[in-house]
Amino acid sequence: MKHRFSFLTFARTLALGTLLVLGTRAHAQGDPLPSWNDGAAKQAIVGFVQATTDKASPQFVPPAERIATFDQDGTLWVEHPMYTQVMYVLESVPALVKAKPELATVAPFSTVLEILKGDRAAIARLSMPDLEKLLAATSTGMSVETFSAEAKKWLAAANDPRWKRPYTDLTYLPMQEVLKYLRVNGYKTYIVTGGGQDFVRVYSEATYGIPPEQVVGTAGGTSYGYDKDGKPFLTKEPKLLLNDNNAGKPEGIHLMIGRRPHAAFGNSPGDQQMLEYTKAGDGARLAMLVLHDDAKREYAYGPAQGLPDSKVGTFTQALYDQAQKQGWTVISMKNDWKRIFAFE
Amino acid sequence: MKHRFSFLTFARTLALGTLLVLGTRAHAQGDPLPSWNDGAAKQAIVGFVQATTDKASPQFVPPAERIATFDQDGTLWVEHPMYTQVMYVLESVPALVKAKPELATVAPFSTVLEILKGDRAAIARLSMPDLEKLLAATSTGMSVETFSAEAKKWLAAANDPRWKRPYTDLTYLPMQEVLKYLRVNGYKTYIVTGGGQDFVRVYSEATYGIPPEQVVGTAGGTSYGYDKDGKPFLTKEPKLLLNDNNAGKPEGIHLMIGRRPHAAFGNSPGDQQMLEYTKAGDGARLAMLVLHDDAKREYAYGPAQGLPDSKVGTFTQALYDQAQKQGWTVISMKNDWKRIFAFE
Repeated sequence: MKHRFSFLTFARTLALGTLLVLGTRAHAQGDPLPSWNDGAAKQAIVGFVQATTDKASPQFVPPAERIATFDQDGTLWVEHPMYTQVMYVLESVPALVKAKPELATVAPFSTVLEILKGDRAAIARLSMPDLEKLLAATSTGMSVETFSAEAKKWLAAANDPRWKRPYTDLTYLPMQEVLKYLRVNGYKTYIVTGGGQDFVRVYSEATYGIPPEQVVGTAGGTSYGYDKDGKPFLTKEPKLLLNDNNAGKPEGIHLMIGRRPHAAFGNSPGDQQMLEYTKAGDGARLAMLVLHDDAKREYAYGPAQGLPDSKVGTFTQALYDQAQKQGWTVISMKNDWKRIFAFE
Repeated sequence: MKHRFSFLTFARTLALGTLLVLGTRAHAQGDPLPSWNDGAAKQAIVGFVQATTDKASPQFVPPAERIATFDQDGTLWVEHPMYTQVMYVLESVPALVKAKPELATVAPFSTVLEILKGDRAAIARLSMPDLEKLLAATSTGMSVETFSAEAKKWLAAANDPRWKRPYTDLTYLPMQEVLKYLRVNGYKTYIVTGGGQDFVRVYSEATYGIPPEQVVGTAGGTSYGYDKDGKPFLTKEPKLLLNDNNAGKPEGIHLMIGRRPHAAFGNSPGDQQMLEYTKAGDGARLAMLVLHDDAKREYAYGPAQGLPDSKVGTFTQALYDQAQKQGWTVISMKNDWKRIFAFE
C-alpha cells in the first residue's frame, strides 16, 4: 500500500504541476500585447501570428522558417536626439585624447570636445566622413573583447539626457511584447540594424532577449593574430564588410540568415528594402513601420504627415505613401501604444 | 465518485506518459555515440559534454554560450577524390556551354569538358584562378533562388563515383551522432566551411539538421534589385565577402556568430586557426581533427603520419604535431569509428 500511496502522490503532484503550467499558459495567452491599444496595428500583428502558426491555416509557416527582423534605432528603442552608438563614439573621445593629446586640436576630435562641453549645436558640423573617422578611432584597432568591455562599461554608466536613465531602459515596451509574442510562437527574432553589429551585440541578449548570433548590423572586418604569449585574438579593423542600411539590409539578411523573413519592422527609409524583400515572399508576410508622432511621451518627427523634419531617423512622406500602397502597417506611437516604456 | 475517478485516470495517464518520456530519455542516454569505438576520442567528446552541461561542474557552460563549429569537407562528409562543390561547378559547365557555345573552346571551360569526357587527369591542370573563374561563371549572375534551385536539382541527381550514391549520403555517421549528441545537450551546431555558404545551405538542414542561418562559409556578395514587374530580388555577385579558410574561419565566426565556440572540429590546416581560437577560450574547450587513415572503408591521406600526400584535404605533419602539443584530439577513422556511413 505504501508503494501505491507513493505512486498516487507522485501522480497527483504531476497532475497539479501540469494544471499549474496549463493555467500559466492560458493566462499568458490572454492578451499577448497589453501595451497596445486595439486597432489596425495590433490586429495586423495578432492576425499574422495566428495565420502563420495555425496548422489548419493556408498561410501556415513551418517553425524552421519563422524569421522576424527588427531594425533597432527608432524601432526598438529611442533614437533621438542622437543614435546611442553615436553618443558612445562621441563620449569615447576624451579618453582617446587623453591617450593621444595631439588629437585635442585636430578636427573632428576638437569639435567633439566642444560638443561634450555643452555646445550641442556643434553636432551639426560633424559630417559623415567625420563620424567614420571618429568611429574608426574609437571602435577599431583593439581586440573584440576590449571593444565589448569598453562598450559595456559605457552603457552601464551613461544616461540619456531627457529621461536620465541608461539607454538600455529606453526600449519600447510594446515592441518588447511583439518580440516575446513572436518568440513564444516559434519565431526567431533578429535585429537588423544600420548600427554596429559588435556594439549592439554587447547588450542585445540582456536588453531584448536576442542573442549575439541573431544580430545583423553594419560590420567591419577583423584580423586574426597572436599576442606575445602566442594566444590568438581578433583585432577590429577599420574596413567595412557590410553596410547594413537600405539595400544592405536584405543583402545582410541573406548573408547572415539565408532565409527571407516573414515579418519585418522598421521606421525609416533605411528599412524600405528590408520590408519590400519581406513582403515579396509567398504567403502571409508582415511589414510594419513605427511613426514617431508623440512629442509628449517620446518625440515627433517625419517629415511624413506634416510632422517636423529630422536628420535622425527620418520618416519621409514617400515611405509613408509606399506603406499605404503596398499594404505595410504604420504604427502610430501616439494612438497605437498605451504605454511606451516599462519604467513609466 | 465519477469526478474523482476521472481525475485519477487523468493523473495516471499523465504519470504513465511521464514514465514513458523518462524511459525514452534513459534509453537515448545509453550510448549517444554508438558508431564510435571506445577510446580517447570518444572519451574526449563525452567528457567534454558532461563537464560543460553538469551544473555542479566547475566547467559548466550556460546553454546560451554552447556553440560548436564543424568544418564540412573531410570532417562531416567525404571530400575525395574531389570536393563536392567543385564537382557541382564542373558538372554545371556543359549547360553553361550550351547557353554560350563560344566558351566550348576557351580554357578553363574546354578543360572541364575534357575532364567530364573522362580525362580525369586533366583536373590537375585546373589552377585556383581557373576554379574561381568557373565558380563565378556557374554560381553568380543569377538570383539566389535560381542558384539554390539549380544546386538542389544537381544534388538530387548526381552520384559519387565510388559509392554510386548521392553526395548527401556520404556523411559520416559518427559525426552525425556528435552533432545530435551536442544538440540534445543544448549546443547550437554550426558548419564553418571553406565551401560556399549558399551551396551548403541548400542541403544543410535536411542532411545535418543544421539550418541555413547556422552555416558560415565562403561567401560572395549579393546585390539588391527589382525585376520588370518591380519585384525585388538578390543577385549573386562575383565579389568575395568572406574567405572562410584559415584565419578567415575565426573571423567568419566572429562576423556570423559573435561568440567563441566551445568545441570545434576540422581535418586540415584550413581549420587550424578555428581550433586555436576555440581552445584559447576559458574553461573546457574541445578541439578535434579527423585523420583519414582508412583506405579500405574511405580514404587514406595525410601526409601526416606517413599517409599518402594529397592536394585535397591535406592533413600535414605540422598540424598533427600542433594537435599533440596543444591537446587537440586526433580522430583515427580506422580505429575510432565502428561504422563510417549510415548506409553500410
